[in-house]
Amino acid sequence: MDMSQQQTRSVSLPRSLRKRKKGSDMTNMFQRTCRLEINVPTQIVHVVGTELKVIVDRCAPPQSKSFSIKCGPNVHYKVTPPAGDRNAAPYPLTPNSVLIVTMDAVSETANDSKLSVRYYGEKTESLGDAVLHLTAVEISLDVDADRDGIVEKNNPNKGSWKWGPNGHGAVLLVNCDSETTYKKTLDSEVDEINKVSDLQDMSKMILRTNGPAELPEGYKLTMHISQTTSENVRVFRPRTNAKKDDVWKHKLLKLFLKDYIMVVGTDTLTQEVPYLGGKTELAFFVEGLRFPDKDFDGLVTINLSLLEPCGKGFPETPIFTDTVVFHVSPWIMTPNTLKPVEVYVCSTNDNYTFLKSIKNLVDKCGYKLKICHEYMNRGDRWIQDELEFGYIDSPHHQFPVVLDSPRDGDLQDFPYESILGPDFGYVTRHALNEEVSSLDSFGNLEVSPPVTVNGKSYPLGRIIIGVAFPTATRGRNMTQVVQDFLWAQKVQEPIALYSDWLVVGHVDEFMTFVPAPDRKKFRLLLASPDAGYKVFKSLQNNGHGKAEMFPGLPEAISVNEILSDKKLQAENRYVQNCIDWNRDMLKKELGLDDEDIIDLPILFKVLEEKTGPRAVAYYPDMVNMIVLGDKLGVPKPFGPKVNGRCALETEVCSLLEPLGLKCTFIDDFAPYHKLLGEVHCGSNVLREPSPFKWWNLELRERD
Amino acid sequence: MDMSQQQTRSVSLPRSLRKRKKGSDMTNMFQRTCRLEINVPTQIVHVVGTELKVIVDRCAPPQSKSFSIKCGPNVHYKVTPPAGDRNAAPYPLTPNSVLIVTMDAVSETANDSKLSVRYYGEKTESLGDAVLHLTAVEISLDVDADRDGIVEKNNPNKGSWKWGPNGHGAVLLVNCDSETTYKKTLDSEVDEINKVSDLQDMSKMILRTNGPAELPEGYKLTMHISQTTSENVRVFRPRTNAKKDDVWKHKLLKLFLKDYIMVVGTDTLTQEVPYLGGKTELAFFVEGLRFPDKDFDGLVTINLSLLEPCGKGFPETPIFTDTVVFHVSPWIMTPNTLKPVEVYVCSTNDNYTFLKSIKNLVDKCGYKLKICHEYMNRGDRWIQDELEFGYIDSPHHQFPVVLDSPRDGDLQDFPYESILGPDFGYVTRHALNEEVSSLDSFGNLEVSPPVTVNGKSYPLGRIIIGVAFPTATRGRNMTQVVQDFLWAQKVQEPIALYSDWLVVGHVDEFMTFVPAPDRKKFRLLLASPDAGYKVFKSLQNNGHGKAEMFPGLPEAISVNEILSDKKLQAENRYVQNCIDWNRDMLKKELGLDDEDIIDLPILFKVLEEKTGPRAVAYYPDMVNMIVLGDKLGVPKPFGPKVNGRCALETEVCSLLEPLGLKCTFIDDFAPYHKLLGEVHCGSNVLREPSPFKWWNLELRERD
Repeated sequence: MDMSQQQTRSVSLPRSLRKRKKGSDMTNMFQRTCRLEINVPTQIVHVVGTELKVIVDRCAPPQSKSFSIKCGPNVHYKVTPPAGDRNAAPYPLTPNSVLIVTMDAVSETANDSKLSVRYYGEKTESLGDAVLHLTAVEISLDVDADRDGIVEKNNPNKGSWKWGPNGHGAVLLVNCDSETTYKKTLDSEVDEINKVSDLQDMSKMILRTNGPAELPEGYKLTMHISQTTSENVRVFRPRTNAKKDDVWKHKLLKLFLKDYIMVVGTDTLTQEVPYLGGKTELAFFVEGLRFPDKDFDGLVTINLSLLEPCGKGFPETPIFTDTVVFHVSPWIMTPNTLKPVEVYVCSTNDNYTFLKSIKNLVDKCGYKLKICHEYMNRGDRWIQDELEFGYIDSPHHQFPVVLDSPRDGDLQDFPYESILGPDFGYVTRHALNEEVSSLDSFGNLEVSPPVTVNGKSYPLGRIIIGVAFPTATRGRNMTQVVQDFLWAQKVQEPIALYSDWLVVGHVDEFMTFVPAPDRKKFRLLLASPDAGYKVFKSLQNNGHGKAEMFPGLPEAISVNEILSDKKLQAENRYVQNCIDWNRDMLKKELGLDDEDIIDLPILFKVLEEKTGPRAVAYYPDMVNMIVLGDKLGVPKPFGPKVNGRCALETEVCSLLEPLGLKCTFIDDFAPYHKLLGEVHCGSNVLREPSPFKWWNLELRERD
Repeated sequence: MDMSQQQTRSVSLPRSLRKRKKGSDMTNMFQRTCRLEINVPTQIVHVVGTELKVIVDRCAPPQSKSFSIKCGPNVHYKVTPPAGDRNAAPYPLTPNSVLIVTMDAVSETANDSKLSVRYYGEKTESLGDAVLHLTAVEISLDVDADRDGIVEKNNPNKGSWKWGPNGHGAVLLVNCDSETTYKKTLDSEVDEINKVSDLQDMSKMILRTNGPAELPEGYKLTMHISQTTSENVRVFRPRTNAKKDDVWKHKLLKLFLKDYIMVVGTDTLTQEVPYLGGKTELAFFVEGLRFPDKDFDGLVTINLSLLEPCGKGFPETPIFTDTVVFHVSPWIMTPNTLKPVEVYVCSTNDNYTFLKSIKNLVDKCGYKLKICHEYMNRGDRWIQDELEFGYIDSPHHQFPVVLDSPRDGDLQDFPYESILGPDFGYVTRHALNEEVSSLDSFGNLEVSPPVTVNGKSYPLGRIIIGVAFPTATRGRNMTQVVQDFLWAQKVQEPIALYSDWLVVGHVDEFMTFVPAPDRKKFRLLLASPDAGYKVFKSLQNNGHGKAEMFPGLPEAISVNEILSDKKLQAENRYVQNCIDWNRDMLKKELGLDDEDIIDLPILFKVLEEKTGPRAVAYYPDMVNMIVLGDKLGVPKPFGPKVNGRCALETEVCSLLEPLGLKCTFIDDFAPYHKLLGEVHCGSNVLREPSPFKWWNLELRERD
């Protein structure tokens, strides 16, 4: 652990380092104390934009009473306290006499500037001279702190990170894709660069220097990071750099050697970097290794220091440090309101008709369909549950990233084996000493469209997960590691709903979002037993009491029978209570009005499980739909028919069509509904990233 | 992991819960959706200050066209959308019709209020009635959110925590003292209360309820915390509570049973608490278990929910949750400018004279002296290094807390065995897979007086530690766990200096703070070889070149000899560079001017160690002093004598006496200096807490 490590904990810590920047305000400029010595010339490298401070009295010969200063044209100085009229010199020597030296142009050769101080005694006799030999250089470690995709020169804010459109600070991607498609490894797990295309996934950083061809002897540049930071980042640079006379050698070497070397990263906290001389730029490539998490706020600090030799046998002293800060892109989920790119679905030995319906729908929408075949899914059809699509984003590059669930059903190899690839990233979290439950499936992980809640805006929406009631003495929850990961992303502040009342326990069993042309540009759809009973009562009231639910199926049952089932009523009263609890929570946390919510007529039944009563959908759970733009693939409910048309479908269409939505009812009864899932559980959609840039969120960092 | 656990991560998260408070703004009040049922009366408990929301159409009999409402005098309602002139009723029934119900007085008996909705068909014939039986109660979990030492009623801000004099939020102490002095354990390690005095160390929390003697059947109150919170807090309550008829039984039971039981805490995340009926207060005592650390931001959330029965066999639903947030007091260090209480020093078989000098000084100052005897210190005299005194503070209570260093020399048992006791707390951190180095001794842990830096104020000062240069490829550092602990306290944001250039490697070898009447009310004293050479040169110049350093000691050496030692000069040039680096850092990080710094004349010598050259003081290191108000106990430097007086003492007195400081030079040569330590290393001072309250700091919590 070292100093700069602490400074990564907080954006506000490296204040001292930030002050070492060029600035017009002389008083706020970094001042370096340096020593004079009588009759021993002192060699000093001065970084343009800082100040040298000399306490004049320190080395004064005994009985000195005044001093005068002589210097070359490139050297400027100021004496404090100012000496009134006598500013011309000699200056009276006081214990507080301070000489501030600056230079405003870089040196052509080492030690080409000079400043000397002469001390005088009582009778203005000279008591001795102290001489500084000065070399001025410009040094700037640069990043894209203004987030326009270009590495600008010496941004005054590069050493800190601030959220928002008026914020600043560079952005880093976790290099979590794989440049190769066979013998895959995450690029972030390899500490070298094997393909030039991999550089696209990294953030460029430039060391700009200007000065003489060589630094005075013993001075050197070093890049350094803290122990903690070394777990989160690697920095590479081209092995042989653009020193003009090296071009030929460079081309030759290229044939035999790897082109890029790691400068700092795992196990290498500090390493010298070449000073190239003249006005030059040295390019670095910065690779993120870890997503923000409970123990990592996403901020990464990289330092470059100029080291001064302290004489033979003594360690060097860093006399100037330039610091840049990156924020690793969070993993961002895509709500139903974003445009689909590809639809994923599993092929099994019993879902041919379903697959065909999905294919028809996807074709009609004009999106791509990716089928996960049986050799890969081994019969596990719940592709919604095994993975969640998201993306990472930076001003220079973005790509989708799949979050692999710790569920690890038979589909467990699919995300890594079939999805990970060039510009398609992968991230996962493994449960630690925790039992993975059904609530860890990603049917239990959704995201809302953009919302504004009591004036606070969530332009990327809010993540929604389902857990047990906080008041429950026992209950299933989503594993801590996944929850920690989701909360740590920060840009889609999660909401924890109550889903443990369901056998399967996923939020997608009672809610979804669909696009809408008006209001908040979406509606929240909720399963509603009350709305279900309303449909059935209305049917009975209109003389359709004998019409059958599940017509033609062995489960067929009349409207009258359903309405007379007191147990089913009690169960649905309970279910409505559970959903209403979530309704109240969602209204508060998403800032919704009742007009933003549509109740879909869905009944549930309650099974007595070992750990208590839990609910499943009584007929195909229409809210568990796939949303593809304005086209919805809705589980076919098999409701009672009125004039040849399913009354439940009629009701749902009448609720959704006014919003410009088109419902396609898909038969998932045998291969999904009977296995306690529906269309949504059995599909997944890769969507386009949001046009909103996450760094423009107005969040705060802690002091 | 449950919902409320997530909410402890951030003060801003429990927004939904906070909205469930009483408030005059109806539109922002928590609304609970509740259901009506035709011809089945529904029993509802209503918490005064919230709203019940009924979607009127949900349970309407088929063909209902309008509805009317009747209710008792205590019940108020509002229908939306408002029906124009026809507000009198019946209201037209639309899918959006919403009924909002409130009650403003508590019920005398369960179900003593009523509201009924009658539905009408086309021709205003009645189609059915839905009746709500209402019980109104007041429930409020209360804490001292305004930080005045009194638990006020239902503070609207009790559910969040905000720093600053205009902030809010209750304060918790880590119960890290020990009520017993023999067979000690930290009180926080015992999950019961054995002494009533222990309650003083806890924060009071009151459950105020008002309502009928009993809640309707099946309703109950439960207190609940998250899994994470349960590692940080315990809540106790008196076992038998002040139900009037229980007083006699209570007195009897008191003889046989423990008086306080744990409600929530380790392994108990949720537990029912009694509803006492009428207007009553139930007291709870909240005990902090852990200091803020890398993985704990210090915030603790405690919830109280009202549970509603959902019918036989179904789990209860929380229908109202009140939430309070505490911040655990950080551990706070005390700078030299605070008033001493007790001075600690070790007695060894070779330090009798030193001990006597210290005793004289402490007696003269009027403070207490505590001597750690040899049976305890086993010859380890470095009492500065084994422990650091600090304190914890809350509006209701404060006490000192000793931080035990992982150094663990022969003094290692002293902090726990001799200091821990009633109202004297103890905390330590053990190094994990890390080698403990000399930099882990607390001579390397200091704190500045209050400072303001670029407009940011640090009224409790800033912690100062010493580490290796961030650019060093190898070097000693303070262990990660201790650094993590120090940074996590937040209220004295640490500064990492460079101390690895010293053999011992402690910041107290080159710096200290003394009180001053002017400027920032203190001066930073720095060891300065340049200032040292200035004294020696001046002596030589004034004809005292033959005067001897270490007069009368075997080490005696003349001023001329010292000045002619080129190696010593080079070494001190290096040391001055190292100290100047720290000087520049301290100026920046503490906002100091050169006028706030006094250079003390101290020379160093450099030893060639295995890992490189490192420095030790050449003669007793005067900056390593004990500061007791305006009296300083300074290591006697044994400098060359001029007119019978030590020239170094003269110089130091001339620098410090103008500030009203009195220097007592203490001979620590044999028992301390020769073992590479001085007066400060061999002593420790317990000081009064700062009058500034840490919660009044203007810090920010992260979004």
